[in-house]
Amino acid sequence: MSDFFGEINPPQRLLMGPGPVNAHPRVLRAMSADLLGQFDPEMTAYMNEVMALYRGVFQTQNRWTFLIDGTARAGIEAALVSLIEPGSKVLIVRSGRFGLLLTEIAERLGAAYSTVDAPWGEVVPMARIREAALDYRPHVIACVHGDTSTTMAQPLEGLGELCREIGALSYVDATATLGGMAVEADKWGADIVTGGLQKCMGGPSGSAPITISDRAAEFIFSRRHTEKGIRTTDAEDGDRARIGSNYFDLAMIMDYWSDKRLNHHTEATTMLYGARECARLVLAEGLETRFERHAKAGAAMAAGARAMGLSVYGDDRYRMTNVTGIHIPAGLDDAAVRRRMREDFEIEIGTAFGPLQGKIWRIGAMGYNAMKHKVLITLGALEACLRAEGFAVTGSGVDAALEVFNG
Amino acid sequence: MSDFFGEINPPQRLLMGPGPVNAHPRVLRAMSADLLGQFDPEMTAYMNEVMALYRGVFQTQNRWTFLIDGTARAGIEAALVSLIEPGSKVLIVRSGRFGLLLTEIAERLGAAYSTVDAPWGEVVPMARIREAALDYRPHVIACVHGDTSTTMAQPLEGLGELCREIGALSYVDATATLGGMAVEADKWGADIVTGGLQKCMGGPSGSAPITISDRAAEFIFSRRHTEKGIRTTDAEDGDRARIGSNYFDLAMIMDYWSDKRLNHHTEATTMLYGARECARLVLAEGLETRFERHAKAGAAMAAGARAMGLSVYGDDRYRMTNVTGIHIPAGLDDAAVRRRMREDFEIEIGTAFGPLQGKIWRIGAMGYNAMKHKVLITLGALEACLRAEGFAVTGSGVDAALEVFNG
Repeated sequence: MSDFFGEINPPQRLLMGPGPVNAHPRVLRAMSADLLGQFDPEMTAYMNEVMALYRGVFQTQNRWTFLIDGTARAGIEAALVSLIEPGSKVLIVRSGRFGLLLTEIAERLGAAYSTVDAPWGEVVPMARIREAALDYRPHVIACVHGDTSTTMAQPLEGLGELCREIGALSYVDATATLGGMAVEADKWGADIVTGGLQKCMGGPSGSAPITISDRAAEFIFSRRHTEKGIRTTDAEDGDRARIGSNYFDLAMIMDYWSDKRLNHHTEATTMLYGARECARLVLAEGLETRFERHAKAGAAMAAGARAMGLSVYGDDRYRMTNVTGIHIPAGLDDAAVRRRMREDFEIEIGTAFGPLQGKIWRIGAMGYNAMKHKVLITLGALEACLRAEGFAVTGSGVDAALEVFNG
Repeated sequence: MSDFFGEINPPQRLLMGPGPVNAHPRVLRAMSADLLGQFDPEMTAYMNEVMALYRGVFQTQNRWTFLIDGTARAGIEAALVSLIEPGSKVLIVRSGRFGLLLTEIAERLGAAYSTVDAPWGEVVPMARIREAALDYRPHVIACVHGDTSTTMAQPLEGLGELCREIGALSYVDATATLGGMAVEADKWGADIVTGGLQKCMGGPSGSAPITISDRAAEFIFSRRHTEKGIRTTDAEDGDRARIGSNYFDLAMIMDYWSDKRLNHHTEATTMLYGARECARLVLAEGLETRFERHAKAGAAMAAGARAMGLSVYGDDRYRMTNVTGIHIPAGLDDAAVRRRMREDFEIEIGTAFGPLQGKIWRIGAMGYNAMKHKVLITLGALEACLRAEGFAVTGSGVDAALEVFNG
């Protein structure tokens, strides 16, 4: 490593997997702005702007709307560790890998839990969630909006109403849909919703937007325990069990993002600049326009796949618009097709996890990549790779996709 | 917010506080490179390069040397939650705010702990740590190398030997010194050392480099519990208590950074690009040259302060080279001086926390800012601001600093 590996110089690859995808160039440029001190007035003003912008992105009036410094998974854990007390009962809605992740985290937090499951590729009807909740009487209901592992989007209408009825708080992981499909925190009545930047928001992984309802914030503040070293005699501690993590203590993080500006971590300034630019792009485009762009790209991808003789995975009524699962035809070498895509075309498409490993490809069209030419290029390349691997393509995927875009 | 707050456009401020400081321009440029898929061969090659580079930065042969996706504080919590089991006994070495943070985290993890303390502004002699350890017989000894809250650097020679003698594992928080003072993981015999980018490494906050000894890794793998959703029949789980956090589970994160590439979080690619460039800059400059540059800048800052009639905080023998504490003269308005520095000169200097709040300023000269002209400019500006606030400056800080640089 005489030259210490040389300058960063990644290939210009088109990332059409389930995420991360290519960041919008404006986001990367915003991230090269010079740093600020964490309590400089310009920095705290940017923090306040980020709060306002993400209220728009999450379609919420929630005061507590900000960023967790870590990947999308950090947002999930921050929400759960702050909502779940030892012995809390959690109802988990599961039909994919990220539903399993919620279980995993709840177990580590020492929660009791029950699950309401659907097979991968399906969703759980709200009526079944309701039935399970009335039976189990959980403190928290946790679910995933778009589970990229299965490409399904879980309907969430009625979640908040149900939770208010039984006195529970709700959590929604919207990592894979935020900025691409309608994530309506207030309409759902969800108490905490978290996201990430690396999918439909068109930024890099490393910052997790979060929004918290007033009632959830009130609960979390009842667990507040201001940390030693910055606590003063007027520290307002709550009387409930202290949150089991310092880094993910949403009470302290809210105090940091509030006018109190109580020091916690050192805000990841460059990621904040990026998150701010992602939200500006989303809101300037307009949510409806943006969702429509994703819907069209997803529909074109599915139509293209079908025209070539491939079959699309999962229940059409509930498929996410921004990532499409495609059954890998029997006898075809999954890895060989993806290798050709990458090596000949510099296009990445995704494989799958768990029960779907080797069974489906996941092709994303999200954020900056939910664009006509990128969908067409991907389908054209896929057709060539399928033919090269001996698959009898039945029609033009590109033509079928064009029809969706132009029709 | 009709234009959604406009483009990012921070003032070009000189950040001479205790961190964050201005990032090196090369780091910010590296961060604008296009993204890669997380399992693309170019991405995993960059991950391996980062591991090799940070072995150099931490002065270690440790195989397990990589990044935690979060701020420096995320690295601290990842280390502690992975080392501490419920009921573990932890000995915490404390003489400042970040020592208190270790206690805070240990408490939240349900650990038993004992502390060995020194007043803020002093350090704890290894003989006292030894005595406390022999008495308490901890499973883990946790300490802070440079505690920016007090500007003191804790000597750590002999830590590893002591731990091996009593069968303990050690953790060192080197957030504030990594890349600026000698952080010698192997020479110290420390089991886990973590850092951050936003101080002497010259990058933005948001990524925490970590190095883990083989014996600590063995212990952590004995707590391995591969997560649902990616676990296969040959998952190699350990037999000890599962780690209490999913996001900070170092066993899973090591599996992700190993050739297994077991999916965990989605690596924060842009932050990784930045961390890589930070390490390249550090190693290309050479560790000794870099430490000397920081030492000279710190000595010049202290000499300059003294020449102006200010007194320097803390025990000279143990002061960190990269941040200097300066007693705020009696009767002077702390906030007014800092406001003049910021508004007239676009220079940020730091205030302090806890018992030192309003008592000392903390002036950093670290990373890209540990440079002659920046020290001189800061001292010249400080002199003007002190005079303007009515302090009787006794001599030229700039001249005294120049003498250190040129002498």
